[in-house]
Amino acid sequence: MSDAPARPGADPTPADPGTTAGSTAGSTAGRDAGSAAGDWRLARPEAHAPGMPLVTVIGDGQLARMTQQAGIELGLTVRLLAAAPDASAAQATGDVVLGDYTDPAHVRAVAADAAAVTFDHEHVPNEILDELIADGVNVQPQPSALINAQDKLVMRRRLRELGAPVPPFLDITSVEDATGFHDAVDGAVCLKARRGGYDGKGVWFPEGREETASLVADLLEQGVPLMAEKKVTLVRELSAMVARRPSGESVAWPVVESVQRDGVCAEAVAPAPCDGSDGARAVLRDAEALAVDVARELGVTGVLAVELFETTDDAGQPQIIVNELAMRPHNTGHWTQDGCVTSQFEQHLRAVLDRPLGSTALTAPVTVMANVLGGATDPATPLPERMDEVWRRFPGARIHVYGKEWRPGRKLGHVTMTLPVGVAGGGVVPSPERGAGETTGPSEEQVATLRAQARLAAGYLVDAEWEDGWAPE
Amino acid sequence: MSDAPARPGADPTPADPGTTAGSTAGSTAGRDAGSAAGDWRLARPEAHAPGMPLVTVIGDGQLARMTQQAGIELGLTVRLLAAAPDASAAQATGDVVLGDYTDPAHVRAVAADAAAVTFDHEHVPNEILDELIADGVNVQPQPSALINAQDKLVMRRRLRELGAPVPPFLDITSVEDATGFHDAVDGAVCLKARRGGYDGKGVWFPEGREETASLVADLLEQGVPLMAEKKVTLVRELSAMVARRPSGESVAWPVVESVQRDGVCAEAVAPAPCDGSDGARAVLRDAEALAVDVARELGVTGVLAVELFETTDDAGQPQIIVNELAMRPHNTGHWTQDGCVTSQFEQHLRAVLDRPLGSTALTAPVTVMANVLGGATDPATPLPERMDEVWRRFPGARIHVYGKEWRPGRKLGHVTMTLPVGVAGGGVVPSPERGAGETTGPSEEQVATLRAQARLAAGYLVDAEWEDGWAPE
Repeated sequence: MSDAPARPGADPTPADPGTTAGSTAGSTAGRDAGSAAGDWRLARPEAHAPGMPLVTVIGDGQLARMTQQAGIELGLTVRLLAAAPDASAAQATGDVVLGDYTDPAHVRAVAADAAAVTFDHEHVPNEILDELIADGVNVQPQPSALINAQDKLVMRRRLRELGAPVPPFLDITSVEDATGFHDAVDGAVCLKARRGGYDGKGVWFPEGREETASLVADLLEQGVPLMAEKKVTLVRELSAMVARRPSGESVAWPVVESVQRDGVCAEAVAPAPCDGSDGARAVLRDAEALAVDVARELGVTGVLAVELFETTDDAGQPQIIVNELAMRPHNTGHWTQDGCVTSQFEQHLRAVLDRPLGSTALTAPVTVMANVLGGATDPATPLPERMDEVWRRFPGARIHVYGKEWRPGRKLGHVTMTLPVGVAGGGVVPSPERGAGETTGPSEEQVATLRAQARLAAGYLVDAEWEDGWAPE
Repeated sequence: MSDAPARPGADPTPADPGTTAGSTAGSTAGRDAGSAAGDWRLARPEAHAPGMPLVTVIGDGQLARMTQQAGIELGLTVRLLAAAPDASAAQATGDVVLGDYTDPAHVRAVAADAAAVTFDHEHVPNEILDELIADGVNVQPQPSALINAQDKLVMRRRLRELGAPVPPFLDITSVEDATGFHDAVDGAVCLKARRGGYDGKGVWFPEGREETASLVADLLEQGVPLMAEKKVTLVRELSAMVARRPSGESVAWPVVESVQRDGVCAEAVAPAPCDGSDGARAVLRDAEALAVDVARELGVTGVLAVELFETTDDAGQPQIIVNELAMRPHNTGHWTQDGCVTSQFEQHLRAVLDRPLGSTALTAPVTVMANVLGGATDPATPLPERMDEVWRRFPGARIHVYGKEWRPGRKLGHVTMTLPVGVAGGGVVPSPERGAGETTGPSEEQVATLRAQARLAAGYLVDAEWEDGWAPE
């Protein structure tokens, strides 16, 4: 998820839930409900192919947009509950209802007739979802799983129960809790809002006992529920992704390395580079197995991303620690659109509908994804011209654009680049069972080159400048 | 193109070009025009991302649907001129206008504001397009090129001028023309309607002089403009596809082998299998070069498919003969969605906008596409259940569904299957420059297995039966 999901009340072009007179469409069960809730003026019942499932997605960001793209291929219909008619996903979708995901009537209205209801963010109040489930609506993932992606303290406790690797942590309800924790971890304090944080927001690294105390006092006074955990010394970040169906089947993608800047995903490399040592292989194997276990134990359905820290234990061996969970398609899985047989978006739709999952075999020895985050200013060169320049230099660059207006730091798109089939050699492929095992993997140099290219491409899309000074001949 | 493109007058749920009262949307230049022509009730100006191009596609079939899918990724807006609100592409698109592509006012209305106007079929009258161009609209491809995809006699004459390989042919305006041609080609007559044929329609193989004479008499009396050409003895069919920009750049995909059944594409294998002999390599090289030449010489923009017959010359050497031209994404290019860096749909959009073209490097050593054509009856097992069964057996099967109701022989979807990265070996890769050259290509057996699997998958989607009797354990 890139931006905090908009709600109509906070939006410059709000939907008016009362404006349903003049709706052009015919009457369906969903629509009748909608006449009392939500704005159905963009809704289009004709978008539903006969006999194919309707999946309601609560949310209108780029994850919903790319889910719609996958839905088109599967012949099913994605219906959005969107905050604005020009939202990223609303642009690309036939059946859109404008409304507020915190309003039970709106959510209930768009859920009518849906074979499954799912999300592009974790912010729908669970009480609303509980009501839907009581009414017989197929909500996936369910609130009992979602709570672990909504409340970091609940997640930490649950994972500790399961024996998953988590850092030392504490519920923080007073300044004394915080200073005590500070002392216990020798000052390595990471403070987190239990709920609502994303992309680095809601996370603080106070320096010293006093800053810890004053920060916690401020936040508690503002009513922010808090927890603290021990700051980890990072080797790198990994992301282990898995999809799981309500009936139990799950499949994992190869674990990827992700690079965060200012708490926001900047880059992902799939599969995660591996030096071939037993320790390195074990870490990747463990990470994948962990994601499968977590999905099963928490009852996650759809796509689960387990964000991990790779660190070293006291013996200097690599080990992993769980950072966050996300229960939806995830930024570190965007590479699957261009580097894998089944994308995370298609897999999420199949999983929430409890349909057989697809192959996660690689279609490239290595894929690099780089985010396009809004720069400090909106460059004078229009985005289409920036795309053209990137394509001129890198004809293999896959540019994904979200249709969002520029704002500093905003996720506006991403670029993926893949190593062509058959040109890899010299490295190690950690997951032979995925079909890449009979060739040698990409070399360190090949991966480094591809990463540099993806960064250059994303950088040009951000500010219309080549960081390496490249100029066309 | 799968079905004859519907026109509202012939449609069971016709759009009423007069019904524009009650349009819910605000006013734009395009919309004002629309208030006089076309039905704008599904149109959605909010679907246009700020600063990104709008591409109008005339047509509403699966080609337009998959073009919309590609447009989502590029952040641009596809606006459709559709015959029905539930048409394949209309289901999947935010901005849809209902209207008639033979009505100049309707076409003019949807072309307003478009950075480019393009097509998913060849049936828009050229006079309308000429008017648009005179008004300054960017129509791609242009009527001067399109005529070669519309009129088979024009195409044959033009290709002969260019020195492209064509069979002996004749303009047929009388029964005497036909019988004379029959005698000249020793009875190997293929009779074709000059215009409007597709998927085997409008093509006849009369047996003997008398049948030729009576068939021609009938057709001429019905006012069907005719041509005849010499029937070719096929080794196999090939398809050479290329994309070309108005400013001249063109890129070719690897030539594919296609299999037609009853005149309809049933299967495509990319790249076309090649035994590695000099003759076989030369044929594929020639076919690719021919497509590039034809695109340039005819001034084609967007995607061009050159359908070819592979036959043998008098010396027994393989040679190619042009069968048909299509100036749009083509059934034999669907494999590019899953087996190539840049799909034909994305490439078409980039090309008609005169933007840099993408890499046509393979992402799989071999990709097989099999069409899902409506069977004699609509099976009792619903399509989603048929898809699930295919996925259970073949987790790597990519199923593309068009959202169309069953009709016998109708193109309802397609399946692609790819050989995983790194497992090919033993065969020959004909296009080393595309990045697959440093590995050996797939073996004959691997290709045969993949073809059989794709056929089985498509077959199950058609009639809910495994042709080989397979049953899950």
